[in-house]
Amino acid sequence: MKLQELAKALDCELRGDGGTVITSAAPIESADSGQISFVANAQYLKYLETTSASALILAEDQQFDRLPSLRSKNPYLLFAKVIGLLYPDETPIWGAAKSASVSSNSDIHSDVSIGEFCVVEDGASIGAGTVIDAHCFIGKNTHIGQNCRLYPNVVIREECTLGDEVILQSGVVIGGDGFGYARSESGYTRIKQIGTVTLGNRVEIGANCAVDRGALGPTVIADGVKIDNLVQVAHNVQIGENSIIVSQVGISGSTKIGKWVTLAGQAGIIGHLDIGDRAVVTAQSGVTKDIPADTVVFGSPAREIRSAHKIAAATNRLPDLSKRVKALEEELKSSKPDKQ
Amino acid sequence: MKLQELAKALDCELRGDGGTVITSAAPIESADSGQISFVANAQYLKYLETTSASALILAEDQQFDRLPSLRSKNPYLLFAKVIGLLYPDETPIWGAAKSASVSSNSDIHSDVSIGEFCVVEDGASIGAGTVIDAHCFIGKNTHIGQNCRLYPNVVIREECTLGDEVILQSGVVIGGDGFGYARSESGYTRIKQIGTVTLGNRVEIGANCAVDRGALGPTVIADGVKIDNLVQVAHNVQIGENSIIVSQVGISGSTKIGKWVTLAGQAGIIGHLDIGDRAVVTAQSGVTKDIPADTVVFGSPAREIRSAHKIAAATNRLPDLSKRVKALEEELKSSKPDKQ
Amino acid sequence: MKLQELAKALDCELRGDGGTVITSAAPIESADSGQISFVANAQYLKYLETTSASALILAEDQQFDRLPSLRSKNPYLLFAKVIGLLYPDETPIWGAAKSASVSSNSDIHSDVSIGEFCVVEDGASIGAGTVIDAHCFIGKNTHIGQNCRLYPNVVIREECTLGDEVILQSGVVIGGDGFGYARSESGYTRIKQIGTVTLGNRVEIGANCAVDRGALGPTVIADGVKIDNLVQVAHNVQIGENSIIVSQVGISGSTKIGKWVTLAGQAGIIGHLDIGDRAVVTAQSGVTKDIPADTVVFGSPAREIRSAHKIAAATNRLPDLSKRVKALEEELKSSKPDKQ
Repeated sequence: MKLQELAKALDCELRGDGGTVITSAAPIESADSGQISFVANAQYLKYLETTSASALILAEDQQFDRLPSLRSKNPYLLFAKVIGLLYPDETPIWGAAKSASVSSNSDIHSDVSIGEFCVVEDGASIGAGTVIDAHCFIGKNTHIGQNCRLYPNVVIREECTLGDEVILQSGVVIGGDGFGYARSESGYTRIKQIGTVTLGNRVEIGANCAVDRGALGPTVIADGVKIDNLVQVAHNVQIGENSIIVSQVGISGSTKIGKWVTLAGQAGIIGHLDIGDRAVVTAQSGVTKDIPADTVVFGSPAREIRSAHKIAAATNRLPDLSKRVKALEEELKSSKPDKQ
Repeated sequence: MKLQELAKALDCELRGDGGTVITSAAPIESADSGQISFVANAQYLKYLETTSASALILAEDQQFDRLPSLRSKNPYLLFAKVIGLLYPDETPIWGAAKSASVSSNSDIHSDVSIGEFCVVEDGASIGAGTVIDAHCFIGKNTHIGQNCRLYPNVVIREECTLGDEVILQSGVVIGGDGFGYARSESGYTRIKQIGTVTLGNRVEIGANCAVDRGALGPTVIADGVKIDNLVQVAHNVQIGENSIIVSQVGISGSTKIGKWVTLAGQAGIIGHLDIGDRAVVTAQSGVTKDIPADTVVFGSPAREIRSAHKIAAATNRLPDLSKRVKALEEELKSSKPDKQ
Repeated sequence: MKLQELAKALDCELRGDGGTVITSAAPIESADSGQISFVANAQYLKYLETTSASALILAEDQQFDRLPSLRSKNPYLLFAKVIGLLYPDETPIWGAAKSASVSSNSDIHSDVSIGEFCVVEDGASIGAGTVIDAHCFIGKNTHIGQNCRLYPNVVIREECTLGDEVILQSGVVIGGDGFGYARSESGYTRIKQIGTVTLGNRVEIGANCAVDRGALGPTVIADGVKIDNLVQVAHNVQIGENSIIVSQVGISGSTKIGKWVTLAGQAGIIGHLDIGDRAVVTAQSGVTKDIPADTVVFGSPAREIRSAHKIAAATNRLPDLSKRVKALEEELKSSKPDKQ
């Protein structure tokens, strides 16, 4: 594509030669002729003068005119759109693979693609434009919206509901039984998990995640939530719109996560908590209490970040503090020989 | 069902109108007419006076007579049983799906259900009443007991043994190769893992867990153990009866976990340790030493909980302690001008 | 096999009766007649005098002559080789299972085994000697080398490349989409992940791991890297030769891990870091900064281990330090009544 075609299609500002031909995209440090790159992070500005890219995507106020560029207030978002144009999805082949086992009591739109060896059970429905890759399992009465993508080997158990434009990576398990047991002297007795899972529109879930069905009532993941790989979402968790859950996070039962929250990698949240809107839980933190909106927490157990940082800084100096206390003790001892 | 039918079937105390009709169950805060709910946690007693449930399951000594109730010393266990009656399992269709690949050299009871695209290899056996959902793999010479349930997409490799009433959620891998290598100057050489996995009766394992086969000899999970999602059980681990392993826990090779132990979420245990009966490892703790029976530990590295809490409390006050030491230093300095 | 046959096949020193017949291997504490065992760890030397094994594998300088033995500078490596001889792999049946869906536009060597219900898409290639178990998915244009083993239920998405002798355990997902989004006021927009995954020779990856494809350019795991179960490798990570990644580790995007590095269980590394050759990250550590070569780190956040240990030791004594400071304050107060 020519740069001017990209600019026109994306309605963004073009600076320099719009006739520049762009064939692919690459990171700024390795981009070559015919490639477009971007800078969305000040760390990479150092490559501006040396990159061999043919064009760049830059912030509107970035001073630079050595190469032609596309400009945006949000260059990373513009880059996402450019990538979408340069690398269009393949047109799916609608219909079910001959090997797939699709119930005659299901409701599958004609513009749906179902891959080899998939299983779609009674009462399931799948909306137009959805692509389901090989080896997926769609349980009884599960409803999948439009334009979703299930990569190979996804399991969605019975009675679950997915919105539109949901993307599930390989190995995802939606609607497994929650971990609920009644303890007695003879052992633990399973509480049958009779709830469901509801995923909103544009929910995306990474490889090998587990989202359990509710014990009673649903586990709910709201519109626009993005979840990385190997994340655990326990029964009856609720996650608000546009929250981000990074890899290997664990969220225990019945906890409510607000909107626009970020849970960084390997963080853990105990059950029955409320995490306020726009809260940020830093990596590996362990949350044991409710978190108010707009609060950043750190540590295990997690504390508000300023006090956590003060404590961390003091902990770093602790060996020195110990020495200073010892010195004080000795000084005090030596200064009072008469008292001994 | 009528409340008196539930009470009779479960042999429990009924208070109030036994003719009350119960159609389903719900959490106490959202239960409505026709629904039964329960209180097993003091946190929820506040809903007693306002719930719209038609009946409740309560502790024997709970004062309450506004609504009819079922009573038990263990109301949560009674609730588990009520749920079992209100929501019976579907009757399985015995036999193997036409698409399944079942070896003619396997020993499958006639009352076994095998789902679409399952693979059952030579020498495998499966006991009466077991239901195996779609896309499961049962390797050579693996033995599965009676009344087990394997949800879609479970892998059990060769030579493993499962007891009765075992439940495996989707994505579980039983009998993968343990992580054992001999290091030399040229790299790491795999130690072929020739052991097996043995799961006792009523073992339940959550979605996407991995239980590795032993290097030599078996990995053993005893009767009644319940394991949540995304847990790692390394080669030659032994887990004693009725222990509970919460989501994302990792147990390293050859460690022995006692009976009635609780390992809370994201805890990690290094290899070759002994964890005593009824020990509790709190969430995210990192266990580096043996734990005696009946001991609660906390932290990374994990310490006995009282000393861990003392240290945690002192750590919280550390910035203040630093200031107090600085004040002492200054006071001592100023009090001895003659010495300087 | 006779002990002298093992010694000859492996070209190692034999002491004692070479005619001893060995039928299997076992741990030294439970080995019995006809079995061979080994000691590679001083912890197990205590069993030397009591073991019922028929022969042992020992270090060259270990004083012991009660039983016949094989000797090596690296007895654990020798044990790995003995196990390989005593427990040879079954000869695979070359060819694809009738139920497998193998594209006619793929390039599969005649000596390849493809299991039941596998899917191999257009443009894929698979080298001689590779065994692919049931339920595996090989995406478009993915290339798999020689003598690889994919256990049941592995997913390798499109455009990935595997070297020779790669072993992937069940549930592994190679080439899932990386977690990349551009944030704007309306939510997060997916950055299409157009990169790939490259696995070198002898790479081994444990059950239910996720290795994401690059955003732009590849995610690269070099020759000889061994990865345990449930590990997360994010987009554009690079892992150098012969590094070891233990269970449940998470490596964030674009981080470079050097050669011969060890990342112990549940450790986490944030994105865009450089971890030097032969560095060791201890279990559960959280790495937030580059690590120089040959450095051991510990803690969350991770610090160089000597300073981390000093801080940990001082933290252990913190409740005592608090008391000592209080005593100093009181002493100072009481020693200066005139000032008050």
